[in-house]
Amino acid sequence: MRIATVADGQRVWLGVVDEDAATVQEVTVAAAGVADPAIGFIVALEAGSKPGFAADPVALDSVRLLPPIRKPSKNIICVGKNYRAHAAEFTGSGYDSSAAGPEDAVPEAPILFSKAPSCLVGAYEDVVVPWGLSEEIDYEAELGVIIGRRGRNIPVDSANDYVWGYTVINDITARDLQSRHKQWLLGKSIDTFCPMGPSIVSADELDAHDLELSCWVNGELRQQANTRDLIFDVPTIVAVASASMTLEPGDIIATGTPAGVGIGFDPPKFLARNDVVKVSISGIGTIENRIT
Amino acid sequence: MRIATVADGQRVWLGVVDEDAATVQEVTVAAAGVADPAIGFIVALEAGSKPGFAADPVALDSVRLLPPIRKPSKNIICVGKNYRAHAAEFTGSGYDSSAAGPEDAVPEAPILFSKAPSCLVGAYEDVVVPWGLSEEIDYEAELGVIIGRRGRNIPVDSANDYVWGYTVINDITARDLQSRHKQWLLGKSIDTFCPMGPSIVSADELDAHDLELSCWVNGELRQQANTRDLIFDVPTIVAVASASMTLEPGDIIATGTPAGVGIGFDPPKFLARNDVVKVSISGIGTIENRIT
Repeated sequence: MRIATVADGQRVWLGVVDEDAATVQEVTVAAAGVADPAIGFIVALEAGSKPGFAADPVALDSVRLLPPIRKPSKNIICVGKNYRAHAAEFTGSGYDSSAAGPEDAVPEAPILFSKAPSCLVGAYEDVVVPWGLSEEIDYEAELGVIIGRRGRNIPVDSANDYVWGYTVINDITARDLQSRHKQWLLGKSIDTFCPMGPSIVSADELDAHDLELSCWVNGELRQQANTRDLIFDVPTIVAVASASMTLEPGDIIATGTPAGVGIGFDPPKFLARNDVVKVSISGIGTIENRIT
Repeated sequence: MRIATVADGQRVWLGVVDEDAATVQEVTVAAAGVADPAIGFIVALEAGSKPGFAADPVALDSVRLLPPIRKPSKNIICVGKNYRAHAAEFTGSGYDSSAAGPEDAVPEAPILFSKAPSCLVGAYEDVVVPWGLSEEIDYEAELGVIIGRRGRNIPVDSANDYVWGYTVINDITARDLQSRHKQWLLGKSIDTFCPMGPSIVSADELDAHDLELSCWVNGELRQQANTRDLIFDVPTIVAVASASMTLEPGDIIATGTPAGVGIGFDPPKFLARNDVVKVSISGIGTIENRIT
């Protein structure tokens, strides 16, 4: 199943997407007292409800895609340096405050940081850069994980039971702020710096560790990798995060980006106004966002 | 005005605290569609509503204090190394992944990181340590800021207009996780690791930059400082954070801790089971939490 959160005129609703027909159909099922429509739906399904529909499907191009989750219970949990080649390029770039040198590039434990939910935007919305505050804007194509069930101390063996589905995330980053402020929150959390979508695909439809991930800037291929090359796989990340924090339905994990980001080039290839960044993951879909 | 969120049997409500009478009186005013009672009240007041009351005051000791804000729109925004003597002790401890050496101890720009809201607990609730996951538990007494009004790119000069009030926070930290995972999210976000309260005091009642902050462990004074010694003051932090992120009513900022934390001692004085940590800020109040 694919679900998408859409704006239809003034109204925001959650629908089930039919890719072949290019339609989306509004669902009526939602847990009581949950403000976010996607989280309400996921909680209801996990409690045993079946999807019900309000009306006939409408054409996908008649609505505007919003980030599939808009109000997660906590910041987006992000994993740093989770592909080997990217760990080397990031540490080698001089922007990595988390490593003393090249021998330190590949982390021994997952590096977890966060992006504020205020930076979420939809699959085709603009990334609005505060030029002047930052001039060093970079892209990071990533597989996103959506938690389906509340849990703490989740064992690796049963971690997949807590994952509801997957999505595409572009973890846009202001490298100058990331470096200047040491901890990465500010450089990662600028409003509009987390394009996400186009939909969430339920976990039963995918093998999360055999997905092709690609990223193009103005049509030029910059990143291409397979999720089998993650250093810390999805069950490990879920287990490590939940050993500290209770995870809630709708919580979002961005699993890290492969090699090919802008600072991996010499000189760095930062994004400029009017660049278009496209991120695609096989079996999930494509997001495409203009830098403004 | 002082507001507190309380559990009264099975019911959770927001009240105005009368310190002299040791009572709390439930308010009826709240903005529509806001799940968190304190945020609903703050939004309603900012929109011009006057507090209304449901019933007579009840004794404070007849209810249980919860964290005054339970569902902020984003993780708690925390400032690292924001008092000079603490910056030196932290960098000198060997636990500081943000500095290369002593010459790097005092940050040139605020170090911002976050704690997940899932770690909030009330003023007198237990801090439950996952012993085994961490053995190096530390305290950090901090002034907490509560945002009252939505804003982005807030100038330093008008930042105080966006602050609704202040509270007491203990930014409990697992030093081993903070160091192992490079970025600080995991070591800071363990469930129950953010005691907060006892109430929020509105900004008109305080001079935020002349508050005495103290912290005791089992009655032994460990931290004592005045908020006038903050390296980055409250307006500066609000301006820097909001240059990246839209701040929302009810967002929480922990402004940093002064010298005297456990790793400031040689050997370090980590917290042990049954230790009691008390944090007090003049004009706001005291929180006291047992380590279990």
